[in-house]
Amino acid sequence: MKLVTFDKGRIGIVDGERVIDVSDLAGAVPGTWPPVGMVRLIAEWAERGSTLLDALANREGRPLGEVRLETPVQWPNKVIAFPANYHAHIDEMKHGNGSSVISTYKASGQGFFLKANSSLSGPADDIVLPPLAGRQIHHECELGIIVGKRGRGVTRAESRDYVFGFTCLLDMVVRGKEERVMRKSFDTFCPTGPWITTADEIADFGNIEMRLLVNGEERQSASTRNLIVDIPEMIAMSSAVMTLEPGDIIASGTPAGVGPVGDGDVLEIVIEGVGSMKLRVRQGELGDHPVWDEAKAGLAV
Amino acid sequence: MKLVTFDKGRIGIVDGERVIDVSDLAGAVPGTWPPVGMVRLIAEWAERGSTLLDALANREGRPLGEVRLETPVQWPNKVIAFPANYHAHIDEMKHGNGSSVISTYKASGQGFFLKANSSLSGPADDIVLPPLAGRQIHHECELGIIVGKRGRGVTRAESRDYVFGFTCLLDMVVRGKEERVMRKSFDTFCPTGPWITTADEIADFGNIEMRLLVNGEERQSASTRNLIVDIPEMIAMSSAVMTLEPGDIIASGTPAGVGPVGDGDVLEIVIEGVGSMKLRVRQGELGDHPVWDEAKAGLAV
Repeated sequence: MKLVTFDKGRIGIVDGERVIDVSDLAGAVPGTWPPVGMVRLIAEWAERGSTLLDALANREGRPLGEVRLETPVQWPNKVIAFPANYHAHIDEMKHGNGSSVISTYKASGQGFFLKANSSLSGPADDIVLPPLAGRQIHHECELGIIVGKRGRGVTRAESRDYVFGFTCLLDMVVRGKEERVMRKSFDTFCPTGPWITTADEIADFGNIEMRLLVNGEERQSASTRNLIVDIPEMIAMSSAVMTLEPGDIIASGTPAGVGPVGDGDVLEIVIEGVGSMKLRVRQGELGDHPVWDEAKAGLAV
Repeated sequence: MKLVTFDKGRIGIVDGERVIDVSDLAGAVPGTWPPVGMVRLIAEWAERGSTLLDALANREGRPLGEVRLETPVQWPNKVIAFPANYHAHIDEMKHGNGSSVISTYKASGQGFFLKANSSLSGPADDIVLPPLAGRQIHHECELGIIVGKRGRGVTRAESRDYVFGFTCLLDMVVRGKEERVMRKSFDTFCPTGPWITTADEIADFGNIEMRLLVNGEERQSASTRNLIVDIPEMIAMSSAVMTLEPGDIIASGTPAGVGPVGDGDVLEIVIEGVGSMKLRVRQGELGDHPVWDEAKAGLAV
């Protein structure tokens, strides 16, 4: 099943070119704040999932083109992200690609970080670049994993039960030496969507193909079989530290081929069996601050 | 006014030794999930605040000792944190205090990071240590700032309007070289409380005194006048990057005097005009993972 959030917090199922509004069955109250409709639906999936299936069979839909799709999970507990999770990307960061990064090491040894919930944006939203003179802003093409239930200390063997579904995710980043979290948390720096594809539609979590095109040219291409920390281990590692909650999003790390984006670029992310979305990049006016002028070498405390 | 969350999502006002239940006036529905009652109340403060003042004058209360206080904001949009924000703490980290940290640099140049919402715990909850052999786990005594309204690109001059109130906050951390976010996001690693003291009760944001006692001995003592990035600038810097939302929490950074904690320790944080709370530390069983064995030196990507 493909679940969407649309038109200010409505919940829908996408079936081909139509969207079926199931906000009532999902228990969502569109327009309320904070927007936790999808988070609540995921938590109550055991009770509500089958009624959604009935709606898919019995309700009329509207043309998908007539609604405005939003980021599927708008107010999760957290957005977890794994850096340096493909060997080829680590190599490109070590050996220079025009960025100011000096060294890196793999996710199996450094662990995860977080992106701000407020950086989440949807398939109809532009990626808005802050005006940081002399800085590169890179695209990172990633598989987004949506957590299905609460858990702490989840083992690899149990991990599949905690995966609710998948989504396309772009992890945008300003290159530099400031805190990675800050460099990755600008508004619109975490486009996700266009929907959540539930886990039952993905036969093998260890063989999901993804690619990213910039202005129609392929720049990134990878499969989850090349992950250093694979999906079961991402669930195990993050739940060793933190209680995972329904609706949590895990950004699985970028493959090689990252590169700078600029005003007017069009990014297209395609994940086989999950979905695809095309996003426009534009230059914005907000985001500068003296913190961007003071970068110095140093390790995290 | 002193606002509390208690007894599974109820909202109250603390007046001396009594607590007045205002869940109905706050629009909170105790027991619902996700627990966003306080976040919603803060967002609707302009309409609801005065009715709470009436309740304070007219309603009976219950003894504070009969309720279980919870972390005041349970499901914010984000928990922002400023590292290395006092010169004396930077010096102690540079020159060694038994930790494995090599160098650091100040918040004005590195910016902020995030702690996981799931690390939030309350004044009645123990701080539970993960069993990480050979690792030190440190206390950091911090002022927590609660954001009052949505904003992006907030200036220093406007910043006071965005501060809803203050709370005591402990930023617990495993020392080491892994991602700072992971080292600081274990469950119970962000005790906050015992309540939110609204900003109108604090005359001078630039002169708030705080201290931390471990087993009755003072270990940390500081004032917001010694902050490198002060409160107006924390609002300005974080809102340059991200849209701040009502209920967002900002951990303002630790002063000098951090040190290791162990099973059975009792931490007491006291912030003048804001509140105080006493927390027990105990050894837990969850949290180990091979990621803690693989640390290597490296900069953030």
